[in-house]
Amino acid sequence: MSDKRIAAATEENLYRIFTIPEDPDSTLSLIEQEVSQNLDGFLRDHIVAVEKPLSEIEKDFLDSAMPENPQFVSDIADELLHKLVAQSVHTSSPSFIGHMTSALPYFLLPLSKLMVGLNQNLVKIETSKAFTPLERQVIGMMHRIAYGETRENNDGYYEHYMHSANHSLGAFCSGGTVANITALWIARNTVLGPDGDFKGVGKEGLFRAMKHYGYERVVVLVSERGHYSLSKSADILGIGRQDIVTVPTDDDNKIRIDLLAETIKELKQQNVGIMALVGVAGTTETGSIDPLVAMADLAELHNIHFHVDAAWGGATLLSANQRSKLAGIERADSITIDAHKQMYVPMGAGMVLFKDPHATDVIEHHAEYILRKGSKDLGSHTLEGSRPGMSMLVYACLKVMGRKGYEMLIDRSIDNANYFAELIQQDDDFELITHPELCILTYRYVPKAVQDFMAMCGKEEKVIINDLLNDLTRFIQKKQRESGKSFVSRTRLTPKRYDGKTITVFRTVLANPLTTKEILKDILDEQREIAKESWRSLPAILKKVLSQ
Amino acid sequence: MSDKRIAAATEENLYRIFTIPEDPDSTLSLIEQEVSQNLDGFLRDHIVAVEKPLSEIEKDFLDSAMPENPQFVSDIADELLHKLVAQSVHTSSPSFIGHMTSALPYFLLPLSKLMVGLNQNLVKIETSKAFTPLERQVIGMMHRIAYGETRENNDGYYEHYMHSANHSLGAFCSGGTVANITALWIARNTVLGPDGDFKGVGKEGLFRAMKHYGYERVVVLVSERGHYSLSKSADILGIGRQDIVTVPTDDDNKIRIDLLAETIKELKQQNVGIMALVGVAGTTETGSIDPLVAMADLAELHNIHFHVDAAWGGATLLSANQRSKLAGIERADSITIDAHKQMYVPMGAGMVLFKDPHATDVIEHHAEYILRKGSKDLGSHTLEGSRPGMSMLVYACLKVMGRKGYEMLIDRSIDNANYFAELIQQDDDFELITHPELCILTYRYVPKAVQDFMAMCGKEEKVIINDLLNDLTRFIQKKQRESGKSFVSRTRLTPKRYDGKTITVFRTVLANPLTTKEILKDILDEQREIAKESWRSLPAILKKVLSQ
Repeated sequence: MSDKRIAAATEENLYRIFTIPEDPDSTLSLIEQEVSQNLDGFLRDHIVAVEKPLSEIEKDFLDSAMPENPQFVSDIADELLHKLVAQSVHTSSPSFIGHMTSALPYFLLPLSKLMVGLNQNLVKIETSKAFTPLERQVIGMMHRIAYGETRENNDGYYEHYMHSANHSLGAFCSGGTVANITALWIARNTVLGPDGDFKGVGKEGLFRAMKHYGYERVVVLVSERGHYSLSKSADILGIGRQDIVTVPTDDDNKIRIDLLAETIKELKQQNVGIMALVGVAGTTETGSIDPLVAMADLAELHNIHFHVDAAWGGATLLSANQRSKLAGIERADSITIDAHKQMYVPMGAGMVLFKDPHATDVIEHHAEYILRKGSKDLGSHTLEGSRPGMSMLVYACLKVMGRKGYEMLIDRSIDNANYFAELIQQDDDFELITHPELCILTYRYVPKAVQDFMAMCGKEEKVIINDLLNDLTRFIQKKQRESGKSFVSRTRLTPKRYDGKTITVFRTVLANPLTTKEILKDILDEQREIAKESWRSLPAILKKVLSQ
Repeated sequence: MSDKRIAAATEENLYRIFTIPEDPDSTLSLIEQEVSQNLDGFLRDHIVAVEKPLSEIEKDFLDSAMPENPQFVSDIADELLHKLVAQSVHTSSPSFIGHMTSALPYFLLPLSKLMVGLNQNLVKIETSKAFTPLERQVIGMMHRIAYGETRENNDGYYEHYMHSANHSLGAFCSGGTVANITALWIARNTVLGPDGDFKGVGKEGLFRAMKHYGYERVVVLVSERGHYSLSKSADILGIGRQDIVTVPTDDDNKIRIDLLAETIKELKQQNVGIMALVGVAGTTETGSIDPLVAMADLAELHNIHFHVDAAWGGATLLSANQRSKLAGIERADSITIDAHKQMYVPMGAGMVLFKDPHATDVIEHHAEYILRKGSKDLGSHTLEGSRPGMSMLVYACLKVMGRKGYEMLIDRSIDNANYFAELIQQDDDFELITHPELCILTYRYVPKAVQDFMAMCGKEEKVIINDLLNDLTRFIQKKQRESGKSFVSRTRLTPKRYDGKTITVFRTVLANPLTTKEILKDILDEQREIAKESWRSLPAILKKVLSQ
């Protein structure tokens, strides 16, 4: 063929991919059918069981040259199936209890496709129309769940604020990190806001703001279990990572109120500006919830912006049986909740809520061609610009599950976690490290003989044994992951009972509604089997420790 | 039924939505089939033609109380169809040429569903596995497209850096705003980096950084046509909106290099720190590309971080026929490109590229349970935390279309824009305001009689007539949008030929490959018809102007 004819043929093919739907018998359509009809089966069939080392997987993704010529969709679909899907993670598997991802409701699959087909852009009304009021309604509902309990006239309140161009009850964003940055951005711009001739930190910058207010330091207070995104926020917002002041936690991984009160007093005496106090609900590693009421009291007393990072635990508010665990959250100035965590929505649905509908005044921005003043464009109050219509998925979930449906899911997760905790406690060879307050718990494998032995040991010997146990925990976790049947994650904690020494533990997140008691039993059994094999040399090791 | 039995029934239903796929005859399945088989037809059938006022649409989204009880998926699907889809925007319609959204390739619909089904989280290997090397490969390909042209041994370079745990060639993110913030964050942390005892702005904060470096101000330089996200970035990063120093543009909406050079000199004399110089490629309103080579020269001369915001125009690099328009971009320290704009990927696929693979060292962060040092977790170099696997969609597009396919699309868009510009110029009743450099152009309706009349007028009369024309442009744009057949957007510009007075113009973006010449003709005809109806009073108006 001549170059011209090749070009014409290519152009026709290009035109086809924009206009002709996938053939029902095409590779991609068959993949889609499998996904639609039996997602778990599809993933089990196509994700290979035994893990390849990353360096091996990378070999399939080495070419840095962009392909010159178009390729058939079917070839690419095939390639994705064998190179990508085969080596991805079955995040929705009921026996993968180490992530914050879960099985998702089936109806979200077709709805996601509808979302992509509509391809709305939520930055402005012009490209989103009904999606804008829908998003405002979802934010309104979440706001009411968090803040509405003690308000007398909720209907009037939300009628006034929910769709108001000049107010904002919150924002959707890509995830908890952007939600936390947004909340702290507002906190910073409020604490260092306009004052007399000074036009505010947003306009004049942090250097002039600090000079105007006479501060040498501005800090954020959070427990030592706060999420790393807070320190990232401090960097981005210009206050500096070292000015995240971390307060020690008690043995339940909750912020120590006595030390917090002391720290606030000290900082005030040193004329340090306190930008925000952050409560965690719950922590990523142990699911612990800070004492929010006591924190709210301190924040109120000292007039500090109180933010609650409930990226993980926020969904607990939907259960009437559990929401008291988050008591005090209704006094937070801002709250982060990820719908893609315990609200069973796919990745990419973060939310931040503001108690005061005027809170975003300090970050409001406009542009000539969009976000005109007085418009209802959501983009004038968000950190992000163009954004997809993820709120539709949250809306559908809220309606299809209802509050009671979510309540059942949340309660079930916590029940499951309590059951697993009991299982661990009743087992002579395992040690529960943190009790589940929500559905996260940590534990480790310590055979009975070693426990008995440790009881006889002195401090130094304990350190040596703990080091060995840390290696063992890492080994079991890795081996179990690689065998591909189940997955728990691991982290490092410093429990009081080990004199604050860092120990490595298994961490499980029990939010998948399809995780059964049998699966939990199997996971412990599998760990025990792996341990036994590698722990054959136990007597020799103990002897060695004793002889040292 | 007793409460207990209701609860049991609800629990069973809940379990079903997680385990039983949608029935093929369900409302949602039927919607999905329509979307799959004929997206354009589905949208035309279900989006109502005549626009409802927003206040009317809002009435469907007023309830702030979360529903207590679960509802049937089919009812919610039906509700979404009638309330939401019906009042959304047909962003992919070939006659909607006012947005930066376009028709998308069909294969992205099933692929998006696969992405949601896999629900990977790109923050870390543990929850993404092969998606991590895939994303690194896509970033590598884009990096090579932008920076590889002049490098001698690309294969060796990318073999070394693309999958390196200690390097980053760029990052995926939710969109251009986050990409721009990331680039400027890196610029700030580099300019105010560690130095002797000073641990860097990221760690110690902006106040101490300014004192350490002896600056009173740190600024970002950009043309007055720069995107509003830059000013938002300046706010977030703590340098302050007023320290975005905007440089005037010439009549082609490009930054004036003479004035830029002067400004840099003045700022240096005043001991102002210059954090970054931002080139625009192209501007949101007119698609104009700054003189990147001359800007790169200045940045190099003064050792300034050079960022190019190519969120819109970056895809032009894929056309060998057009990429010279972006010459100089290969000298940028960082580049923003949105795949959800001219790369035909759904909303939510922003990218930022770094020339220096070490650039992200200044923003690197770690945490105990993830992003461990030395790991290949992408989250240690990104602003966002948890993120979906959008890179799979970009990967598939790059492969299915190939560079040549993209070239055809890009060239076609620019051809279309040139054709439309000619059409406008040949028409006595329209006035082309900005020529398309990429596929964006602006124009307005000015009937021949008014043009002739204006030629006879003095400055003051011209102002009055321009005000009337501005009203007319707004009126036509609104009426056309409301009638639902086609859509152009509008913005305000200050062209030299109108003595720098602000005029309102139509703005069109011709990136949809399905937009035909006939559609473009129809759009002008429709505007002419709307104008004629409202412009009946023309003689009287002109008389009034003359008599003033």
